[in-house]
Order: sequence, then C-alpha cells, then structure tokens
Amino acid sequence: MSLKAISAKDAASLDKDLMEIGGWSLDQLMELAGLSVSQAVWRVHPPSAGKNVLVVCGPGNNGGDGLVAARHLAHYGYNPSVFYPKQGKNELYSRLRTQLENLSIPIIADGDAFSIALKETSLLVDAIFGFSFGGPLREPFGTVISEIERSSVPVLSVDAPSSWDIATGPPEEGPGARFMPSALISLSAPKPCVKFYSGRHFIGGRFLTKDIAEKYGLDLPKYPGIDQVMEVGVDADARI
Amino acid sequence: MSLKAISAKDAASLDKDLMEIGGWSLDQLMELAGLSVSQAVWRVHPPSAGKNVLVVCGPGNNGGDGLVAARHLAHYGYNPSVFYPKQGKNELYSRLRTQLENLSIPIIADGDAFSIALKETSLLVDAIFGFSFGGPLREPFGTVISEIERSSVPVLSVDAPSSWDIATGPPEEGPGARFMPSALISLSAPKPCVKFYSGRHFIGGRFLTKDIAEKYGLDLPKYPGIDQVMEVGVDADARI
Repeated sequence: MSLKAISAKDAASLDKDLMEIGGWSLDQLMELAGLSVSQAVWRVHPPSAGKNVLVVCGPGNNGGDGLVAARHLAHYGYNPSVFYPKQGKNELYSRLRTQLENLSIPIIADGDAFSIALKETSLLVDAIFGFSFGGPLREPFGTVISEIERSSVPVLSVDAPSSWDIATGPPEEGPGARFMPSALISLSAPKPCVKFYSGRHFIGGRFLTKDIAEKYGLDLPKYPGIDQVMEVGVDADARI
Repeated sequence: MSLKAISAKDAASLDKDLMEIGGWSLDQLMELAGLSVSQAVWRVHPPSAGKNVLVVCGPGNNGGDGLVAARHLAHYGYNPSVFYPKQGKNELYSRLRTQLENLSIPIIADGDAFSIALKETSLLVDAIFGFSFGGPLREPFGTVISEIERSSVPVLSVDAPSSWDIATGPPEEGPGARFMPSALISLSAPKPCVKFYSGRHFIGGRFLTKDIAEKYGLDLPKYPGIDQVMEVGVDADARI
C-alpha cells in the first residue's frame, strides 16, 4: 500500500486551512497528532520491549507533537524523558511542558545529559523537525543528529527524519547523511522524502475531511477500528 | 470494582485546577473527553450493531464533549447526527460545530426533527448536562428527556444521566424520574448519583496526575493498553 505524498508547501497550506476554514485550534491538532505518535510507539515498541523512551523535541510544532506524545506515553506506563534544548515561544509549548512536569517527566536541555539519556533509552522519538524544515541544521541539533546516527538505539521519526530535506531526502554529507530511522509516522500524508526511507511506516491524523483530501489530492487512509494510527508498510514506492 | 466519586463542587474545582495549574486548555480537555466518549460508544455499540447514532448536545461543556465524540464517530464509520437545540456562547462550540459541518454530519435544532431522528437511531448519546447541572430542566430539554424515556433506544449518558441531580439522583417526578440509561461514561471520576445507576459503567479521562487524584481523594484507574476508556462494571456500590 502506498499513499500520495504532500509537499511542504501544501502541508503548510493544509494546516492553515484546518485552522482558518476547518475550525481547528492548534491545541486540538497537536493533541491528536501527539496521540497518534504515542500509538505508533506502542505498536513499534510496546512497554515489554523497554519502558525508557527518550523524546527529542525541536523548537516548533513537531516538537510540540513530541511533548504531547511523551505525556500519553507516561499514562501508558512508559518512563519517558524529554530532551528539549530550544523551547519555542508559543505559549502552548509552555503549557505542554507544565503538563509533563506535573507527571514528573524529566525534561533536559543540556547536551551532556542528552548523551547519558541516549545510552539509557530503549527507543528514541525524533520530534525535532517536521515538514517545515528548510535547513541548515542549527546547533545543538547537528551534534544531536550525529549522536543519534552513531548510536544503535531504534528511532521513530515524526513526520520526517530530522535533518532530511522534505523534498530531496538525506543530506549528501554531514549530520543526517546516514540517518535512517527504523520507524516513521507521517502526519496527514507522507512527505516526498519518504521515497528515500526504508523501514516501518505509519500514518496518523484521523481527522481529515474528504474536501481537504480532494483539495490536496490525498488518500484518506482506512484506519482500522478506533485506532488513531495505521501501518502502511515500507513506502519506498510512495506515489509522489 | 468501584471508584471513589467526586462531588459537583470538587469536579468544578478539579477542572479549574487542570486549566489554571495544570496547563490544560479547554480545547485539549474536551478533545480527550469526547474521544473517550467515542471509544465507549464503540465498546457498547460497535458499528455492526447499527451505524446511526444520535448525539444530543446541551448548551455547555457536556454538549461540547458530545460534539467531539460525534466527529470521532464519523471517522470510525458511524453515521452520527447531532441534536443541538441551544448552542452555548463559547467560540469553541462554534468551531466544533464547523468541524462537524465539514464532515457533512447533520445538526438539527428542531424538536420535530429530533422526534424523527430518535425513531431512526440505534443508539442515543446523552451529552445534555454534566456535573454542573443544578436543575430545573429548561425546555426543550424536559420534553426531550421525556421522549427519550418513552423510547426504547439504548442510551449512553456522558458524565451523568441528564435530568438527574448530581448528588441525589433521579427526580421524584416529572421528566427523568424513570430515566435509566443502559450505559454511562464518567469523566475523571464517578459523580455521587452513580449509586442510583444500574448499567454498564465506563470511566474516561486518562490524563489525571497523581497530585490531582490525591488532592481530590480519587482513584487513578488502571486503563488497559492505549485505551482512553475503561469499563468499571455496574457501580451501584460506588464508594461515595
């Protein structure tokens, strides 16, 4: 099974439509996105496979999805910790952070603490950059991606492998050139760079309407049951 | 299994704590509440039992939970319709309504249309009043409750059977005196009136922290897997 991909420009336009026409708030969208990420974690790495999950959050909405996911993971019985070195300015991020602190979820911002946490985790959730990433990688994220590349910890990337160009995939050299997560969850629709990806592939975002799907030429996945996430298989043949 | 109940006053205070101390927005809380309602619907009445679900929404937050649930039900493959005769003023309700309209979910406001929809539905979700209900029943809801009482359609009530006093249960006479839903989902914790209830009982609200549970003397349910809802059995013996 393959799903049509959406460009970074269209993904931004789709988000704008959801909020300006669709009546959605960022709070709602991020809650459902983060929930779907947490369900993908459960599928690729149930608690029996190891409860320590390190969620690496970038400064934007991809990082916000990670914060929400970390909260749900705590309620599922995992021991999540969050590396959040550059908190964005949106007040929503502060509130999501408060929610994590009230669950006693460790939030670290220091590179050395990240290196230690990376050694102790059994899964890393890459919620650093999503479809709006346009490069270049700013520090500390270049160093962080290099460390993740060198480690043997399995990675679930949110929306796109961070450091990859959304259209053209992994960079030719430098951090991310050899970065290949073991799992990926695409939100709303795969991004074009999915054609360079090989690994388990999930789709999340069970709230698109037919009108939105038609406007952007997307498939509406047939999610099973009440799941907020669906596995779509290795998607190197995504139609883009 | 029984769970400790929370008074209406404490439930209001808990909601305030979640938003003022906990960092939660109403959008987030309502999204998770409505999601848990939709999961309870799936449990008591899977689509194979009938896809027509009539969600009756009151003017406040209980109604808002119903609006969110209706949206999720549409994505699960049900054919929900919404009876919403008195829309509240919070702009969130307008946005939730827009989300339903964009899914072509019928929203009716007229009593005659309600009577027809009641005959055609296989399940009714009672999202009319929640823990903040203090009586008396204002029209059209007295008539609506009477019609629901007379019908044989199974009912899932959200947080409390509407028309019941949150502390003292069903009214002695008039609309609601013989109202007994077949299923109930308590949000965060059962309300004291649950001791007058007999039927399937679910709990939702998988986001409470230990601190909040301790402050209000509540149990933290052990939700299974990634479920946002848990069946707690007939709860006539709720500890209150």
